[in-house]
Amino acid sequence: MVQQIPKQPVPTSPAPPAVPTSADVARLAGVSRATVSYVLNNTSAVRISEPTRRRVRAAAEELGYVPHAAARSLRAGHSRMVLMPAPPVPVGPLYSRFFSELQWALGRLDYTVVQYGGVGLKGDEEARAWAELRPVAVLVPGTGLGPRGVAVLKRAGARAVVTLGPERVEGAHALLMDQRGVGRRAGEHLLARGRRRIGVVLPEEAGLDLFSRPRLQGVRDALHGRADAEVTELPLAYREESATALAARWRSLGLDAVFAYNDEYAMLLMRALQDEGVGIPDETSVVGADDLVLGRLLRPRLSTVHIELPSGQELAELVERVVREPGTAPETHEVLGARLVPRESS
Amino acid sequence: MVQQIPKQPVPTSPAPPAVPTSADVARLAGVSRATVSYVLNNTSAVRISEPTRRRVRAAAEELGYVPHAAARSLRAGHSRMVLMPAPPVPVGPLYSRFFSELQWALGRLDYTVVQYGGVGLKGDEEARAWAELRPVAVLVPGTGLGPRGVAVLKRAGARAVVTLGPERVEGAHALLMDQRGVGRRAGEHLLARGRRRIGVVLPEEAGLDLFSRPRLQGVRDALHGRADAEVTELPLAYREESATALAARWRSLGLDAVFAYNDEYAMLLMRALQDEGVGIPDETSVVGADDLVLGRLLRPRLSTVHIELPSGQELAELVERVVREPGTAPETHEVLGARLVPRESS
Repeated sequence: MVQQIPKQPVPTSPAPPAVPTSADVARLAGVSRATVSYVLNNTSAVRISEPTRRRVRAAAEELGYVPHAAARSLRAGHSRMVLMPAPPVPVGPLYSRFFSELQWALGRLDYTVVQYGGVGLKGDEEARAWAELRPVAVLVPGTGLGPRGVAVLKRAGARAVVTLGPERVEGAHALLMDQRGVGRRAGEHLLARGRRRIGVVLPEEAGLDLFSRPRLQGVRDALHGRADAEVTELPLAYREESATALAARWRSLGLDAVFAYNDEYAMLLMRALQDEGVGIPDETSVVGADDLVLGRLLRPRLSTVHIELPSGQELAELVERVVREPGTAPETHEVLGARLVPRESS
Repeated sequence: MVQQIPKQPVPTSPAPPAVPTSADVARLAGVSRATVSYVLNNTSAVRISEPTRRRVRAAAEELGYVPHAAARSLRAGHSRMVLMPAPPVPVGPLYSRFFSELQWALGRLDYTVVQYGGVGLKGDEEARAWAELRPVAVLVPGTGLGPRGVAVLKRAGARAVVTLGPERVEGAHALLMDQRGVGRRAGEHLLARGRRRIGVVLPEEAGLDLFSRPRLQGVRDALHGRADAEVTELPLAYREESATALAARWRSLGLDAVFAYNDEYAMLLMRALQDEGVGIPDETSVVGADDLVLGRLLRPRLSTVHIELPSGQELAELVERVVREPGTAPETHEVLGARLVPRESS
């Protein structure tokens, strides 16, 4: 039986419980606060006897004292926190794997990755909120961070500010992920297969414009200067009804190919086209993107653009290098690999 | 062209750049530090003239000063940070959507959600690392947090500690997500369809045991007391080769049904079985879980267990209520809904 979590009247706030401080530990252990700090931070510069160290640790344990990350980072000169804004839309399997790998690689370098979920903050406001946590590095996927935001972060102590997205931002290191290349590969492939009237799926789900618009532009790039070829935009929601409706008017569109944004939309649309009796690839070629396992399971097998994100390991090493040498001039690296994997659907 | 991010020798660390403090702002604006604090925190309790407020804001702007989150939370009595450990494995679409929704709902209540990526820390160590950030609430998916960890978090000021997982932890609020119910629904359905020799897929990918083991147990529960029915464990990696190998020896296993862990594994295995000539559902029934759109696109359409996670809105309201009244006795709510959606594959 699933219960609803009950709503209850919210009483007025009581006094917050007392949080144990290093002063409490010092009092219980009978030592100075400085000694507590030396012991709990494993400072080797100061000689402290083993019995005293034990007493301090026992007192901290008894009181449930944990150092304050911020206070500790102030002492250490910088924190080990790498802040990354959480993406605003539910993530796909590709990004999810990339993030797990990055988190792991940074963890091995003794950084803590914190994904910050901002809602409704714009531009510099957002950068200011991130800066309040005093991260040593900030990795910003997508767009939205401007040069002023970068400056705010740096002045708050961030040594590395790295953007992952379509364009460079002044003052930050840039890992350029040009989604246009994804569309270009698809467009070039379809042209080579003799296709001339190419539909391009634009997901109706919020937040995907950031990827779908440059992919569309990439297809246009591929067709540039070809008077005999043209692109048709196809809005599509990730729902069966939406695909069925599009398939029902397919023949009136006069298309001979479709680049379906990614493999999931391709699968959705291909099924609807098949149910409508549209021959694939004879009547219409279908190309997806992401190279998911599921595309190989379809019949016909789905042609796709394989996308290579930067490895988490490489990105972690870039962060480490820039944190250690914060004066490094901003670097720009093209990191999005895109290559076509032709299968049976095109 | 994709470049490798170059590795370069790491020089020794230079002195960290000076981070502007509220004292710097006070000096530039010609006011006291207290005044800076009142102005930048929009305190209305103290009367400060509009020209002074403007001067302080201009000075903060010029210096690029942002308040320190930790210092601010100490003043406010508690932070607005909700900490959530990042899941150790790449997340599926269901969790990704749940997390986006939760983040949004907590954002509307003026909380900031921070996903903490811990690597290699165990038990209390992990809780201690979270406690260092002084979150006002901690939401812990999965297992691993023990009663001592809960106590550490509470003593560091966390007012709400909520676990989302298979069991209650002393001192914490529990949203029970019993994966057994998912397996039980599948088992009951297959029994009702006259199936008696039921295979259960166990993904070989790391980290999924947490879900697959209780789902297996749920199938066993459904078959309990039925001498004529039995369960066979089927390890399977999410790769075509693995599915092909399993399909090749399918007939020697003598199974008449399979609960394939989730829809993605079900799709992988069903394709391999079809390629092997195994009739579905006549020879073998297939049931997945998650009710993804893609399951409805298969032929035969995939039977599945629809899983309902708690809504982000409900969970956000629970957090708000407990933060305001931290003395609330730990509550336990069953939140995982599971119902079978029969289609053509079973």
